[in-house]
Amino acid sequence: MDIGFIGLGSMGLPMATNLLAAGHKLRVHNRTASKADPLVKKGAELMSTSASVAAAGGVVITMVADDAALESLVLGADSIAQRLAPGGIHISMSTIAPATARKLAEYHAESGSIYIAAPVFGRPEAAAAKRLWICTSGPHEAKHKVESILHAMGQKVFDFGDEVGAAHAVKVAGNFLIAAAMESIGEALAMLEKSGVDRGAAIDMLSSTLFACPVYQGYGKAIAQMQHTPVGFRLPLGLKDVDLALKTGAELRVPMPIASILHDRFLESIARGRTEMDWSGMALAARDDAGLPPRK
Amino acid sequence: MDIGFIGLGSMGLPMATNLLAAGHKLRVHNRTASKADPLVKKGAELMSTSASVAAAGGVVITMVADDAALESLVLGADSIAQRLAPGGIHISMSTIAPATARKLAEYHAESGSIYIAAPVFGRPEAAAAKRLWICTSGPHEAKHKVESILHAMGQKVFDFGDEVGAAHAVKVAGNFLIAAAMESIGEALAMLEKSGVDRGAAIDMLSSTLFACPVYQGYGKAIAQMQHTPVGFRLPLGLKDVDLALKTGAELRVPMPIASILHDRFLESIARGRTEMDWSGMALAARDDAGLPPRK
Amino acid sequence: MDIGFIGLGSMGLPMATNLLAAGHKLRVHNRTASKADPLVKKGAELMSTSASVAAAGGVVITMVADDAALESLVLGADSIAQRLAPGGIHISMSTIAPATARKLAEYHAESGSIYIAAPVFGRPEAAAAKRLWICTSGPHEAKHKVESILHAMGQKVFDFGDEVGAAHAVKVAGNFLIAAAMESIGEALAMLEKSGVDRGAAIDMLSSTLFACPVYQGYGKAIAQMQHTPVGFRLPLGLKDVDLALKTGAELRVPMPIASILHDRFLESIARGRTEMDWSGMALAARDDAGLPPRK
Amino acid sequence: MDIGFIGLGSMGLPMATNLLAAGHKLRVHNRTASKADPLVKKGAELMSTSASVAAAGGVVITMVADDAALESLVLGADSIAQRLAPGGIHISMSTIAPATARKLAEYHAESGSIYIAAPVFGRPEAAAAKRLWICTSGPHEAKHKVESILHAMGQKVFDFGDEVGAAHAVKVAGNFLIAAAMESIGEALAMLEKSGVDRGAAIDMLSSTLFACPVYQGYGKAIAQMQHTPVGFRLPLGLKDVDLALKTGAELRVPMPIASILHDRFLESIARGRTEMDWSGMALAARDDAGLPPRK
Repeated sequence: MDIGFIGLGSMGLPMATNLLAAGHKLRVHNRTASKADPLVKKGAELMSTSASVAAAGGVVITMVADDAALESLVLGADSIAQRLAPGGIHISMSTIAPATARKLAEYHAESGSIYIAAPVFGRPEAAAAKRLWICTSGPHEAKHKVESILHAMGQKVFDFGDEVGAAHAVKVAGNFLIAAAMESIGEALAMLEKSGVDRGAAIDMLSSTLFACPVYQGYGKAIAQMQHTPVGFRLPLGLKDVDLALKTGAELRVPMPIASILHDRFLESIARGRTEMDWSGMALAARDDAGLPPRK
Repeated sequence: MDIGFIGLGSMGLPMATNLLAAGHKLRVHNRTASKADPLVKKGAELMSTSASVAAAGGVVITMVADDAALESLVLGADSIAQRLAPGGIHISMSTIAPATARKLAEYHAESGSIYIAAPVFGRPEAAAAKRLWICTSGPHEAKHKVESILHAMGQKVFDFGDEVGAAHAVKVAGNFLIAAAMESIGEALAMLEKSGVDRGAAIDMLSSTLFACPVYQGYGKAIAQMQHTPVGFRLPLGLKDVDLALKTGAELRVPMPIASILHDRFLESIARGRTEMDWSGMALAARDDAGLPPRK
Repeated sequence: MDIGFIGLGSMGLPMATNLLAAGHKLRVHNRTASKADPLVKKGAELMSTSASVAAAGGVVITMVADDAALESLVLGADSIAQRLAPGGIHISMSTIAPATARKLAEYHAESGSIYIAAPVFGRPEAAAAKRLWICTSGPHEAKHKVESILHAMGQKVFDFGDEVGAAHAVKVAGNFLIAAAMESIGEALAMLEKSGVDRGAAIDMLSSTLFACPVYQGYGKAIAQMQHTPVGFRLPLGLKDVDLALKTGAELRVPMPIASILHDRFLESIARGRTEMDWSGMALAARDDAGLPPRK
Repeated sequence: MDIGFIGLGSMGLPMATNLLAAGHKLRVHNRTASKADPLVKKGAELMSTSASVAAAGGVVITMVADDAALESLVLGADSIAQRLAPGGIHISMSTIAPATARKLAEYHAESGSIYIAAPVFGRPEAAAAKRLWICTSGPHEAKHKVESILHAMGQKVFDFGDEVGAAHAVKVAGNFLIAAAMESIGEALAMLEKSGVDRGAAIDMLSSTLFACPVYQGYGKAIAQMQHTPVGFRLPLGLKDVDLALKTGAELRVPMPIASILHDRFLESIARGRTEMDWSGMALAARDDAGLPPRK
């Protein structure tokens, strides 16, 4: 199939690579054009504007940094929404607010194109290995049409129905749960460390029993070892995602006290200069507050 | 081996049953003597006082409600500490504060007996299935002597070294992490429910991917369905355990903001009359605060 | 002086009334025009559009609901910023984010007019009694020019220098402190009530000694009596103001854990249907969570 | 009157001095006997044991560090409770848990003496100036008998009825409110400081208007200037008092989320080595978390 792909960051690049490998034809665009080089070598066509990756009745995938970046692609004159009409499909895979998705879906509908939500769970390695988990929501028929595209990028697709915000809400909830787990682990290990218990031994035990799952194993180990590079997901993006949970909660009148603690931890981490760490570095704050010295 | 066993609650009873099944001889004691009936039928000897389950140089296992209950067994005239001397071993499997363990271990040492910590993870079904995870700490030789006893009750033993408080600290940290996960799930699902997403579908997705582990699967499902009976672990005991984390953190000067939120949630749940629910019922508070009506 | 006045709500109306009484000539505008009736009877001129209250080189006062409302007055074609040029002054008295003020001040500067910040502390009765406290910031000369106007509305003016966001930051901080005091009082009185202490007696003692000041006396009494009507400041506006503190804190990387608790309390209050109460009604949530029955 | 006085710390010493000045005869005791020197010079009799300050049917005042210290004076053989019998009165002025007061009052009743609660608000300077505020509760007749004694130490007595825990609950609530105000001020000023607003100017404005009362004026100024010596009340005692609020709340099932934040702030402050500061030094943590450098 002919696919437009916008956003070649640490996630978008391996995802696009897998689409090429699956035999799709790609027109790609990225703010920093050089990021597209490896794709171009494999046959992708680099477009100088975002809108030009879209063709009437075609498919465009977006994997960009935040709500504002996505809005700038979709809204306005000569946007992808308009270029896709009539009948084209926008597969929106970024982590954004459900409210933004609803607004963009409406704009698409007015323009004669279709928005479907397809945010993903998984880090860059999982994207490269085609092992992403993809959550979808939006018009049934459109989702059906792009099924093979989604399967070329992930190991499993979970559908959450017609309401376009639903999959984004699940993604926001999921990232909130990851951050909540990281902070909880950070607090637990600070307490254990001051108790004289080995951080690594404790997390090994917990993440091989009650918590034998990727989040506690992967982030648990990083937090136990205070090893927050290389960066899978930059720490300031964690603030953005927790704020999506808080914002969604606020709009719906759902107090989320743990999300507020996470918000503060990310702020504190940024204020202390930890912007170039993986977002698991937010768990260092629990050690700081306990007066533990930085890892040598 | 001849073993004394004190505390035949929902955990102690299946654990003792497994010891009998493994061929050990048991002298048992419980405040409510009738709870011992099934064991007596299988050959256990019921003793009218707690101290009388202990014999010089023998082994006593305790699985009681809290620090105070355990202290009343160990300290004072004619206690198990004194009856075990010289050289007997007290396997302490309750969830208690590390500080209490250190105090009791000292008292044992003065009395000529030995305290080892062996708290467990797992619910009553896991205890019955001999699938508990057991954390140990304390004097090496004593732990070595009782190894086969522990293996008769659990699927795996994790050792945390000589310092007797260590295993208890890990147990307290583990229960804190479970409660933190439950509260996080409660907040996430309240937000998703008000977003129009099906609670069950969301938790199914999350607990089969990022969070594919017992805590998120078991408690996640209960919370999604708002099904908090039958009781595996009574809700007020959750408050007790979170308070052990807070108390241990406070003694060591480790702020644990999430533990404080959990403390408040358990208080709120008890104030609202949820004392007869499983402790996962604490996650209902997030729905209350969001103004969601009680489950019909 | 000739003054334009936009925003005749529960605060704006008495403020404008005082300006008339002090001999100023007013052109007024309000979304709901009928609110202007009492002023028109006293000689004010009612204008059908907001921009038409402004005259080149003149003065416009705004007292509107929020940042968005103010932006819609200032930005864009035929706005008050442009009508005031050259040299007119916009006295901005609403509670808004410092960042919004900076943005508007820049727009004014480009348009040839001047923005000064002059948010106020005090409830409608204080506005009527000319007893507001006014915080100012912005260009010195402009502030000097409008001094007599400010003194016609308040009992004292506190200046915070040239930086236009400063006075707004102080106002946001002040409202945060009021809400923090209300929540603290709510928690303290819930604890005392369950201790069997009379709520009123406790607050009488505290607010006549350590806390002998308007916030603890006025709001303290309302909270002790659970009397949250008539409305001085609607509860949902409390959420807006606390969110201004959180937003300002977030932009500057300042964690404000108490502000997060207040955010949750306001959400909870709105979710429970308390939107038509005075914002002091947010203190009821502490009683709810303690399982205390609603006031009969 | 003949009065026994136990506890000559920074509060007890000036209180006892005022009693002497009012013409009372004092028998005093203090763990560190030399603290009594100034009183002995003015005629007080120094007793080597605490119990010996008490005489049958007399009056004993206690002003000691915490619940445990007070219990050790009252309970057990040859305690002040027993020496006061028959009919003597114990005026208990320390900050303790209401539950402790109830327990001690019962013990007194069994021993034939009477416990009345009379905790105080005010710092050492206020004690010296006879300007303390005294809260009382307990048996009416006993309170009536010692009225003149209380008035010799304070500017006003506030009575909270017969239930002996009531005055202590009010004292605990009051100290919680002070700490909550300090933390709120700390957060507000961190936000303002990063906004470029002068800390001192902001607090001057707020504490001369909405918050024109001793707590915001005194502590507000200290926090604005980051001046936390000399010590009026040692920082670790702040943790003790906030924990009394949390403990009382927990027993009564009253969640107090702000008290939990204060608990964490005091822990963090102690972990960072601020034990020798005045308790207002807890407000420094808000600056730390915002990444602001320590005051030069």
